[in-house]
Amino acid sequence: MMNPQRVPMPGLPSSVTIWEVGPRDGLQNESTIVPVDVKVEFIDRLAAAGLRVIEATSFVHPSWVPQLADAEDLLTRLQPAPGVRYPVLVPNDRGLDRALALGVREIAIFGSATETFAKNNLNRTVDESLRMFDPVVRRARSSGLRVRGYLSMCFGDPWEGEVPIEQVVSVARRLIDLGCDQLSLGDTIGVGTPGHVSALIRALDAAGVAPDRLAVHFHDTYGQALANTLAALQAGVSTVDASAGGLGGCPYAKSATGNLATEDLVWQLNGLGVETGVDLRALVRTSLWMAQRLGRQSPSAVVRALATEV
Amino acid sequence: MMNPQRVPMPGLPSSVTIWEVGPRDGLQNESTIVPVDVKVEFIDRLAAAGLRVIEATSFVHPSWVPQLADAEDLLTRLQPAPGVRYPVLVPNDRGLDRALALGVREIAIFGSATETFAKNNLNRTVDESLRMFDPVVRRARSSGLRVRGYLSMCFGDPWEGEVPIEQVVSVARRLIDLGCDQLSLGDTIGVGTPGHVSALIRALDAAGVAPDRLAVHFHDTYGQALANTLAALQAGVSTVDASAGGLGGCPYAKSATGNLATEDLVWQLNGLGVETGVDLRALVRTSLWMAQRLGRQSPSAVVRALATEV
Repeated sequence: MMNPQRVPMPGLPSSVTIWEVGPRDGLQNESTIVPVDVKVEFIDRLAAAGLRVIEATSFVHPSWVPQLADAEDLLTRLQPAPGVRYPVLVPNDRGLDRALALGVREIAIFGSATETFAKNNLNRTVDESLRMFDPVVRRARSSGLRVRGYLSMCFGDPWEGEVPIEQVVSVARRLIDLGCDQLSLGDTIGVGTPGHVSALIRALDAAGVAPDRLAVHFHDTYGQALANTLAALQAGVSTVDASAGGLGGCPYAKSATGNLATEDLVWQLNGLGVETGVDLRALVRTSLWMAQRLGRQSPSAVVRALATEV
Repeated sequence: MMNPQRVPMPGLPSSVTIWEVGPRDGLQNESTIVPVDVKVEFIDRLAAAGLRVIEATSFVHPSWVPQLADAEDLLTRLQPAPGVRYPVLVPNDRGLDRALALGVREIAIFGSATETFAKNNLNRTVDESLRMFDPVVRRARSSGLRVRGYLSMCFGDPWEGEVPIEQVVSVARRLIDLGCDQLSLGDTIGVGTPGHVSALIRALDAAGVAPDRLAVHFHDTYGQALANTLAALQAGVSTVDASAGGLGGCPYAKSATGNLATEDLVWQLNGLGVETGVDLRALVRTSLWMAQRLGRQSPSAVVRALATEV
């Protein structure tokens, strides 16, 4: 199997935590409903490939996301692997009740940096959504849970166009003040470029949100996800969201390409000598297996390039 | 049409010269033979979209690359646009005769950093190929032509695996000593990663080949081309090779993905506030038109994302 030569780049973190979103963010945008036992096998295979944070599912209302209507069933069947974290998305108080009842140890909430996306995705203003999240985060933390805040549309919005950096910093600051341990900066429609990434991370740092509280969540709609990742690593971020095989995407983006593929990220980090703990060969095999289940080819460049070699 | 927000990144060049390789490197790997009038229109449309260096064709023997057997016919029909350079690839003395007879002002030769690729592609050792290039470069320069040297397999070789940086520096140094004005560092199979790119450019600089004598030529086989480009810009390179619509690729790479798409590059540079002179909308329209002629979709993320918007 071809491998990149390992040549480190000064100034990068020595290791990166990959936050694997395939089972949740990836599958929720797939129209083929995947049986729960396939999902459990998918998650188990990801853990066996060395991923240490796997976002397992979401407690949104089943009518919003039919693909994830089996959240309880999935978590009941899942046998946690030692050392692996399985956060779940929780949209509101009711979702938190369901998560707590199943012994979930870590949740994520899903906020928006723009009013239009908040309205279209959450049916609320940004203020209203933060008020909705407030008791969720408080109760989660008092129950000892870790809380991640997703922040969508940080680099552009399909309805509003440009999104000012100050606006993103303002909403980010409020999510941190609510009690989020970590923020994931989402380029939901993939329009960001590396200078924008650096500038936002610097502005957040200046507002008291240090890079070690941040993750980045890039989409590859315009082919920019890995260059943006490099800029984020150079700016001190060491948690990167990715989706095995490039599963999923944003239904509001105009292209088939969605989440950064975990394999493409691991290839880059392997070349840079940045530790991830991931076995690329096992991961590619997993994505090929899932692509068969979904009946479509993986959009990941690395999965396609290595398909006959693993 | 969605555009990236313009947020410059400190330390990058203020402008980049895009060396458009679609008509030569792109088309030569396409199996559908394109009529000469379509090629002329393609080149004219690229010039009208603002590209200022367009590698037009190659004077290799017609039996090697049937797609480019019409090189004389093409150059005879082409009406040069003011301010646009039209370099051509010249493999040997005989090719230079043909180029000079047609008034070509700028040529490129095609070398290899590895013995195996030199043998497989040029049927010569590296030493023998440099001896073959010597009189070509000398005669071209004494005729007032600019000479570019392509250097293939700089970041890995499909037969040899890893390619030591010192080996690339050594061959690069010899191409410069032959009289090449510029070297294009080729990641012919797309295996490079950003630290490797930085390290090679630094090593070349230490050996007396400054970044302003360099261009980079990345393939997107493993999704790394734009991250590698960012690393090259950070290291001081300001000439980047790209292929409109992502045309072409390396026949030795195992994936359909080949050259970095010019559109994906322009999107990134637009976001970074780096001037290219290129009208992205006109360029995407050109690649959509060419994709129709070739009967296959462009692999460029930007072309696909903007297809319905231009």
